[in-house]
Amino acid sequence: MKKTALIMAGGLGERFWPRSRKVLPKQFLSLSDDGKTMIQLTVERVRPLVDPADIYIVTNRDYRHLVLEQIPDIPEANILCEPVGRNTAPCIGLGAVHMEKKYGDAVMIVLPSDHMIQYESIFLSALEDACAIAEQGPLVTLGITPDSPETGYGYIKFQPERTLGRAFAVEQFVEKPDQETAKGYLASEQYLWNSGMFVWKISTILANLKQHLPDTMSGLRAIQAAIGTREEQAVLEREFQAFKSESVDYGVMEKAKNICVLSCSFGWDDVGSWLAVDRMKKSNEFGNVVNGNVVAVDTRATIIQGGDKLIAAVGLENMIVVDTPDALLICEKDHAGDIKKVLDHLRICNHTEYL
Amino acid sequence: MKKTALIMAGGLGERFWPRSRKVLPKQFLSLSDDGKTMIQLTVERVRPLVDPADIYIVTNRDYRHLVLEQIPDIPEANILCEPVGRNTAPCIGLGAVHMEKKYGDAVMIVLPSDHMIQYESIFLSALEDACAIAEQGPLVTLGITPDSPETGYGYIKFQPERTLGRAFAVEQFVEKPDQETAKGYLASEQYLWNSGMFVWKISTILANLKQHLPDTMSGLRAIQAAIGTREEQAVLEREFQAFKSESVDYGVMEKAKNICVLSCSFGWDDVGSWLAVDRMKKSNEFGNVVNGNVVAVDTRATIIQGGDKLIAAVGLENMIVVDTPDALLICEKDHAGDIKKVLDHLRICNHTEYL
Repeated sequence: MKKTALIMAGGLGERFWPRSRKVLPKQFLSLSDDGKTMIQLTVERVRPLVDPADIYIVTNRDYRHLVLEQIPDIPEANILCEPVGRNTAPCIGLGAVHMEKKYGDAVMIVLPSDHMIQYESIFLSALEDACAIAEQGPLVTLGITPDSPETGYGYIKFQPERTLGRAFAVEQFVEKPDQETAKGYLASEQYLWNSGMFVWKISTILANLKQHLPDTMSGLRAIQAAIGTREEQAVLEREFQAFKSESVDYGVMEKAKNICVLSCSFGWDDVGSWLAVDRMKKSNEFGNVVNGNVVAVDTRATIIQGGDKLIAAVGLENMIVVDTPDALLICEKDHAGDIKKVLDHLRICNHTEYL
Repeated sequence: MKKTALIMAGGLGERFWPRSRKVLPKQFLSLSDDGKTMIQLTVERVRPLVDPADIYIVTNRDYRHLVLEQIPDIPEANILCEPVGRNTAPCIGLGAVHMEKKYGDAVMIVLPSDHMIQYESIFLSALEDACAIAEQGPLVTLGITPDSPETGYGYIKFQPERTLGRAFAVEQFVEKPDQETAKGYLASEQYLWNSGMFVWKISTILANLKQHLPDTMSGLRAIQAAIGTREEQAVLEREFQAFKSESVDYGVMEKAKNICVLSCSFGWDDVGSWLAVDRMKKSNEFGNVVNGNVVAVDTRATIIQGGDKLIAAVGLENMIVVDTPDALLICEKDHAGDIKKVLDHLRICNHTEYL
């Protein structure tokens, strides 16, 4: 069966502020050492399995020019723009109705555009397995074998005895746990991290959207009917505005019946905050990950991301320093989650120029 | 007897990097809330006692334009420029030979240009007492009654029984002590902080320079003889290059016989590092002293000095953040003394543009 890929690239990436901005979110930045942006790496990674003509990118219309710039070899018609962000269910649905119109049915690989994967061949081999299973009908999700009791990820509980090829049947999707619960998940050996990567047939996901999110599905059908007509843009606009914001995890996966999960281990990182830089980039002998014009004295376990401007760090430990031309972030690592509070404050004070 | 003042303004102020630079040292910056620079405040403070025509400023020739700009009401001839810095003994000697040529003898108040004084009327009253005592012959130094076992100051041991007016005879000048020694000094009630402020007659200091630093004094006499001649600049250059670098404390005060100290308490601060900002400026309810465009989240006891650029501080405690257009300092407060290491590094790497 034909393989297609849908890459979701509409996110705002607030947790990488001030480097990521509303006008330049994380997926369009390079956070690794090779200089390639995260979306470029995502596209490259899937190309051995999927022809560029069959790769679709759903993004916010404000980022269309960034996608065109960074991914020049994908047909312009495959870049689908959401008028507003309505989370992953409408995003995936938009891709699915476009693909259905073009291909009828096909296997559809759904990937976020801002995750890092270390072992690409293992990733591709897992995708191939997932495609083969998806052809048989189920919704397939890629679960990551946990190596620590992470509280920042959702988890997937699988049933060890019920297998489908190398996949397990999913018993339950669970939200981000607290530390103790996460430790219990690890000890039980029945939980995987929810990576947000999915494989299914176009027909399967559309049937599930119809069953679990019927309002969204009827809007998507209206959008599909208008593709290529003079009303396409107006209908897209109207329907998207009306969509309920809903994640595919909550809106579909938690309710659907025929789901299985492939346990994977390919060095996955969802690059959820600046802390991911510690995992992705080489640190020096003091545990610092440093970019830019930096003088560090007695400084340890610190991330410094600057540019031409001289940054002198003295006596720092466990800090994140990110300098950009108009905004500077200095954050203790354990407070990385509080960067949102800065953005909230900027919104409240109407300093949108920094968002 | 006529009163004159000599204000020493040749220092580099490295400890206020990156705000202070070789081209703009601390004394020419405003570090207080009123917007006046430290040298402006120093001149203002002494004016109730000394006529502007009798105030001399010794500075490095690179800073002459800054003095002219900031202190426009002092005669240009009173701005004396050292070709190179040779510490305080040659600096004071240069002032003294100029003053001697103009006034014969007079009382000479010597003040650093970069100290803060909170209670100006108490300061002036102390200066008046010191002038009256100095007229009788001794070298008078202003000692500050310590309120903590500071290790960053030199101390003066006085003899409680031998008094001259309200001054005590000095038994000994001692260098910066360690913490335990400093605690002993406080407990003994016989030690004052050495403020680096002096009052004496021109004739007294010149006699002492002759006795204790005869080479320097003969150079100073050559400089004096050349004042107003075509050779003035060449002689000044030649003699200063040849001077040994020597502080007046070490070169004169520690050796001189007839010294007394006035115990003072006028809210003195030598503004020796960024930490002084905590003492000089009002902090907010979180103990932060903040200037500029700052968003602080969960941040305590932190000094942030910025400008227009947005600075977001998240989870900081006990930090110093100083942002300037081309250099940014982030320093843990207990490491404030290590800012020098940054400057050493910049010198080694020949990044003189940041010094």
